[in-house]
Amino acid sequence: MTPPTWRTATDGLTAIRTGDLTSEALMRECLQRVAAREPDVAAWQYLDERRALEEARRRDSSASQGPLHGMPVAVKDLFSTHDMPTGCGSAIYADHRPASDAAVVALLRRAGGIVMGKTVTTEFAFYSPGGTRNPHDLERTPGGSSSGSAAAVADGMVPWALGTQTAGSIIRPASYCGVVGYKPTYGLINTAGLKPAAWSLDTVGVFARNVPDVGRLAGVLSGRDLAPSWPATHLPRVGLCLTPQWEAATADTEQALQEAVMCIRDAGGEVHNVRLPASFDELLAAQHTIMIYEACRSLAFERDRHGDQLSSQLKALLDEGSGVPAVRYDQARQTARGCRAELGRVFMDIDVLLAPSAPGEAPAHAAGTGDPVFSRIWTLLGTPCVNVPGLTGASGMPVGVQLIGPRDGDLATLSIAEWLFSRLNGG
Amino acid sequence: MTPPTWRTATDGLTAIRTGDLTSEALMRECLQRVAAREPDVAAWQYLDERRALEEARRRDSSASQGPLHGMPVAVKDLFSTHDMPTGCGSAIYADHRPASDAAVVALLRRAGGIVMGKTVTTEFAFYSPGGTRNPHDLERTPGGSSSGSAAAVADGMVPWALGTQTAGSIIRPASYCGVVGYKPTYGLINTAGLKPAAWSLDTVGVFARNVPDVGRLAGVLSGRDLAPSWPATHLPRVGLCLTPQWEAATADTEQALQEAVMCIRDAGGEVHNVRLPASFDELLAAQHTIMIYEACRSLAFERDRHGDQLSSQLKALLDEGSGVPAVRYDQARQTARGCRAELGRVFMDIDVLLAPSAPGEAPAHAAGTGDPVFSRIWTLLGTPCVNVPGLTGASGMPVGVQLIGPRDGDLATLSIAEWLFSRLNGG
Repeated sequence: MTPPTWRTATDGLTAIRTGDLTSEALMRECLQRVAAREPDVAAWQYLDERRALEEARRRDSSASQGPLHGMPVAVKDLFSTHDMPTGCGSAIYADHRPASDAAVVALLRRAGGIVMGKTVTTEFAFYSPGGTRNPHDLERTPGGSSSGSAAAVADGMVPWALGTQTAGSIIRPASYCGVVGYKPTYGLINTAGLKPAAWSLDTVGVFARNVPDVGRLAGVLSGRDLAPSWPATHLPRVGLCLTPQWEAATADTEQALQEAVMCIRDAGGEVHNVRLPASFDELLAAQHTIMIYEACRSLAFERDRHGDQLSSQLKALLDEGSGVPAVRYDQARQTARGCRAELGRVFMDIDVLLAPSAPGEAPAHAAGTGDPVFSRIWTLLGTPCVNVPGLTGASGMPVGVQLIGPRDGDLATLSIAEWLFSRLNGG
Repeated sequence: MTPPTWRTATDGLTAIRTGDLTSEALMRECLQRVAAREPDVAAWQYLDERRALEEARRRDSSASQGPLHGMPVAVKDLFSTHDMPTGCGSAIYADHRPASDAAVVALLRRAGGIVMGKTVTTEFAFYSPGGTRNPHDLERTPGGSSSGSAAAVADGMVPWALGTQTAGSIIRPASYCGVVGYKPTYGLINTAGLKPAAWSLDTVGVFARNVPDVGRLAGVLSGRDLAPSWPATHLPRVGLCLTPQWEAATADTEQALQEAVMCIRDAGGEVHNVRLPASFDELLAAQHTIMIYEACRSLAFERDRHGDQLSSQLKALLDEGSGVPAVRYDQARQTARGCRAELGRVFMDIDVLLAPSAPGEAPAHAAGTGDPVFSRIWTLLGTPCVNVPGLTGASGMPVGVQLIGPRDGDLATLSIAEWLFSRLNGG
């Protein structure tokens, strides 16, 4: 596969606005790509071509022009849609038709966007994979849990996709698929109508092929200005952070980080080594404890009534969660609170952290969806995270690097991500 | 109406366990009370007698005995139930049948509890009332939004009910109806399957006719030991807190607080006057800002697709929310964060705060569901709150007082509530 050369969301939007393109024509471009590639990639859980085109024509003939006017968006099949099935990656909900749209679905439609279809998620956003393949190498996983969203954007089937992250479900697939993945600060985008996995971790985010595109969609969904703009006169101060999980990094990730560091320094940015406080060593285990404690309650109905339709992997995880006493959960939350309070000190002299997005290139499809090890602690801390693509590993597969900002520092984080993206990708 | 003399949940549970009572017989007692009073009180949105009895018989013949074995529980009609309609107090969802049970519904069923039926909520837990009347005076409101849950428990129709609080939807109706209402620390009970109003405020809680009963049900739902037990050798240190909203208190509430203070002092407890830091003056406005900012996004689908079925009151509130810029929302969250950080100092020399639950006796039914003014700031702070009943106003209507503990201090707060309850109610 050649690198993505498809229209960016911003280009599409501009072309529609100026009349150079119709929503219908753009939708046909996307559907053509789907027709050619979906049999191999299997990114979509639900996609009705006729209906997507109808919706595009309806937008073309509509007088009102919202900020996403006429643009197709893929929606992870963990978000409720009142007019499309919502399966959550589980046979339990194979034919489920929710009564309403999730908040983000309603908001993107209000803005003139079109739900092109629903993309494959792992089972309830945990580890049991759907059938999606990595568009760069069909023998590899696209990552998960937002498998279809990352793959569809990477393969040029759609300019934008919605995802969620509870452990590493946005950053990891974005890294494996070579696209921009943006996990905002916890709570920035409303989760109403999202099937909950673990309430204090579940975060809604966005995939696109460049940084301004993720900022534009997330901006509409959150009611904020997230258009990246880093003043040319300021050179970013970056903290290189190997994280307590560094031993999980392969040579490919090590190499990608080194290249990113060189790129930043070549462009005049500062890079300092940052060692996280010792208390951050506890965060990985704390994230797991919190996730399984909350998940075994969120999914109590499915566990009790449809246990035979759950994967053995998920059952084991929920069983483990049931065994966690409240006191251990409270200790984990206490650890997280303590580290959140220390974040101010971590970011004292730097604008963002630079860290691995994933252990390396996407592993084999048969081996699962890869390891969220490099995202877990940031999800728990609630910080904004961006996967910046542009580098590759030994096999030529994408290997992203992750920029992490302080909580509520989303705009600056996206702005530095754009600064780095444009340099890594010859902008 | 005479004060409630019905079986408490704990008594019912013990009688079933020892074989002195069957679940079916208890359910018949409850249904008899419903038959006699429901035409006046109108607490239930959905109740199928035949089915409730069947479920009770099924429990009676079941070998497994969970901690809520055979006990009826009323569920606010804002929680999803896979086998009963879930209307959320709105015509939009009049016939809605969710595909799954909310987490709390599944957990109470797992524990052997029986969902007796669904209780009336105001429209999406905001201000537009259902038809429920206050069982102590049918011309008055039971309060809201958990109107049917508070009224059903107060009227002896059911020993337990689930509610939610986003502004003052548990404490206020508990005060108006003369029952114990317990709003736990934010996040203590899982909200999966609850129709979201405002994600950073929505809190699941419990109604019962005494304190051990709320502790028992909340304990099962949260996986914690919440059985109140205040050591006889320790006398509670109580901070009398008039709150920045004191001007909203009527003479009835002033009198109730004075009586509670005398009762505490008579029993040997300490009462100190506590003045909240000046920054707490901002919390009331901050709670409103956060609530409407989040609600207009949570309910985006209903607003866009079913706007004609929303009350004008709710429409106005959502319109107001749409007008709140993100920067104002962020300021409100910053205010809340700052005050949460100061809570440690507030609770330095006291175990709990004593504050009004509501402005006074329940107002006329025609005037709405009353004012949540005395709960808003605590909901935003995320502290555990308990309405302790036992006092009355000039018309003989119940007037509760509120005990507030530090975040995660639920057990101690419930324990002191039990200490006070037993003294106020001649225990």
